[in-house]
Amino acid sequence: MPELRKDPITGRWVIIATDRAKRPSDFSRQHVEIKGVRFCPFCPGNELRTPPEILAYRSRGGPNEEGWSLRATSNKFPILRVEGRLTRKAEGLFDKMNGVGAHEVIIESPNHFETLATMPEKRVEDLFWAYRDRVLDLRRDTRLRYLLLCKNHGEPAGAVLEHTHSQLIALPVIPKRVQEELDGAAKYFEYKERCVYCDIVAQEADSNVRVIQETDHFMVLSAYAARFPFETWILPKAHNSHAEIMSHAEIHDLAPVLRRLLRRLDSALENPPYNMVLHTSPLGDQPDPHYHWHLEIIPKLTHVAGFEWGTGFYINPTPPEEATKFLRDAQI
Amino acid sequence: MPELRKDPITGRWVIIATDRAKRPSDFSRQHVEIKGVRFCPFCPGNELRTPPEILAYRSRGGPNEEGWSLRATSNKFPILRVEGRLTRKAEGLFDKMNGVGAHEVIIESPNHFETLATMPEKRVEDLFWAYRDRVLDLRRDTRLRYLLLCKNHGEPAGAVLEHTHSQLIALPVIPKRVQEELDGAAKYFEYKERCVYCDIVAQEADSNVRVIQETDHFMVLSAYAARFPFETWILPKAHNSHAEIMSHAEIHDLAPVLRRLLRRLDSALENPPYNMVLHTSPLGDQPDPHYHWHLEIIPKLTHVAGFEWGTGFYINPTPPEEATKFLRDAQI
Repeated sequence: MPELRKDPITGRWVIIATDRAKRPSDFSRQHVEIKGVRFCPFCPGNELRTPPEILAYRSRGGPNEEGWSLRATSNKFPILRVEGRLTRKAEGLFDKMNGVGAHEVIIESPNHFETLATMPEKRVEDLFWAYRDRVLDLRRDTRLRYLLLCKNHGEPAGAVLEHTHSQLIALPVIPKRVQEELDGAAKYFEYKERCVYCDIVAQEADSNVRVIQETDHFMVLSAYAARFPFETWILPKAHNSHAEIMSHAEIHDLAPVLRRLLRRLDSALENPPYNMVLHTSPLGDQPDPHYHWHLEIIPKLTHVAGFEWGTGFYINPTPPEEATKFLRDAQI
Repeated sequence: MPELRKDPITGRWVIIATDRAKRPSDFSRQHVEIKGVRFCPFCPGNELRTPPEILAYRSRGGPNEEGWSLRATSNKFPILRVEGRLTRKAEGLFDKMNGVGAHEVIIESPNHFETLATMPEKRVEDLFWAYRDRVLDLRRDTRLRYLLLCKNHGEPAGAVLEHTHSQLIALPVIPKRVQEELDGAAKYFEYKERCVYCDIVAQEADSNVRVIQETDHFMVLSAYAARFPFETWILPKAHNSHAEIMSHAEIHDLAPVLRRLLRRLDSALENPPYNMVLHTSPLGDQPDPHYHWHLEIIPKLTHVAGFEWGTGFYINPTPPEEATKFLRDAQI
């Protein structure tokens, strides 16, 4: 019998197909293979072919020269522009504003053939240090309300360039799904006087059927009401609404946790394309007791039918408990 | 300068890229081509290869025989089962229920090579009569809360069989996106004492920059805050919360309106895959003054990057006003 499950934060119901559950081998998926290309603007030596760098971690060289291990620049084709005043306007009953914001790229490694799963842990850690550095800089801009860290790995997941990188999008509004989480978590807090994510961490540790990995600082979980097969969340165990105020010990712990999860996915699902997003509290908000930052990782396995777009209604062919077993048992 | 626009119903902000707006020829898209297959369970003569029919419009023959022009059956691989009591249960802080519901298929034509754009108008009309017949039947089942009519056209849009068909999914819950529309429309009504969709119809008729077609009973519009290029809505001009209580004159008008829109899409975008969903009020609800049923049609043109899933944040590369022009001018 299929099962309907409700996401305790957003209230979304999903269908979990339990009858003919899909195993990793049942997905006719595309594998990510880094081919190497004639010209890559993210490779060392081509620093002048990207917009000027905003941030770099380097052992030698000056700005926009070789010698970096991580580098952040503006996106060459930004979806938002950093110039100008933010102006809200009505258009009859409609609302609009000009596209003020920032759109940056974090190049995570000088090595074209590395991924977050294969690069040294220190480099994965640096991604989160870079994220933190950029938040601390961008949050001074009062026009901005949200900073989105996201990564598309592999062309089927939306990556345009194959050289490993993440994107930072600073927005004058809060993305809808994040707002829903903020609202849902606030509602839960109002009723229970506890953080819903903290409750999830505690309950999942007890039941232990959806825990993929647990460390001193993090829980890696299959989401209970996962919309997609193998949808995985990384939650800090200590309550914290803002990712940028993670402790040094947490950042140091997060790198191997994320790297190991990605290796599990690569092993169980044969290098799947995936998307990763970091959900955190809005820029400039005070630390708050309701919300709990986390990472969401979604391998792109299913041919996304379309009606999900039109309905917000999802059918997940792999029960999260099954996905957990496959990822726990993966050879890494 | 890119523009941020807010959907007046759900409150979702989207980015409309205005700088390098994508024209129809800019999308590297897949075209739907009906190839004909060795064996099609939806073709006449194969009636016994589908579950027994629930409904058929036919000029000759008996149940599960040839002679039909439209036929509805249970889905052979249903995502929900119609048997059993609906049981809600807690799992610690989580909520679940068993997968009670119905999953049916409406085969819209006996002709394997027809589409909603090419079949006679009368057949398109019959799809909506069949929808109405199934609502009137299924709404007697008090376990059910929502009946979703949706169509995936073409394999890239999620169609598994190429023979033209729609799906009916009866759910014990209201899909999230529909709930958001119901909530957003109720909030607007509370403040304005008017239906937001009625206001949109009136304003769009005045401004006339997003109107693709207007008839006695319907408006065909590019959505103001469209998430996807060429996202199009068909709205009835007269307020009505429930699609199944459309008048005869409306159903008769809707068929050519939909057919013509699909021909415009086929012409402007060269037979794109698309998804269509019907949004209406929940089963069993009284007619209500806030909500306004409508059809949403979304051609699948963009390689859906992934972070939209994780953020609810959309970037639309074609301004709706441009899409309107292309569809208005399409040769049909």
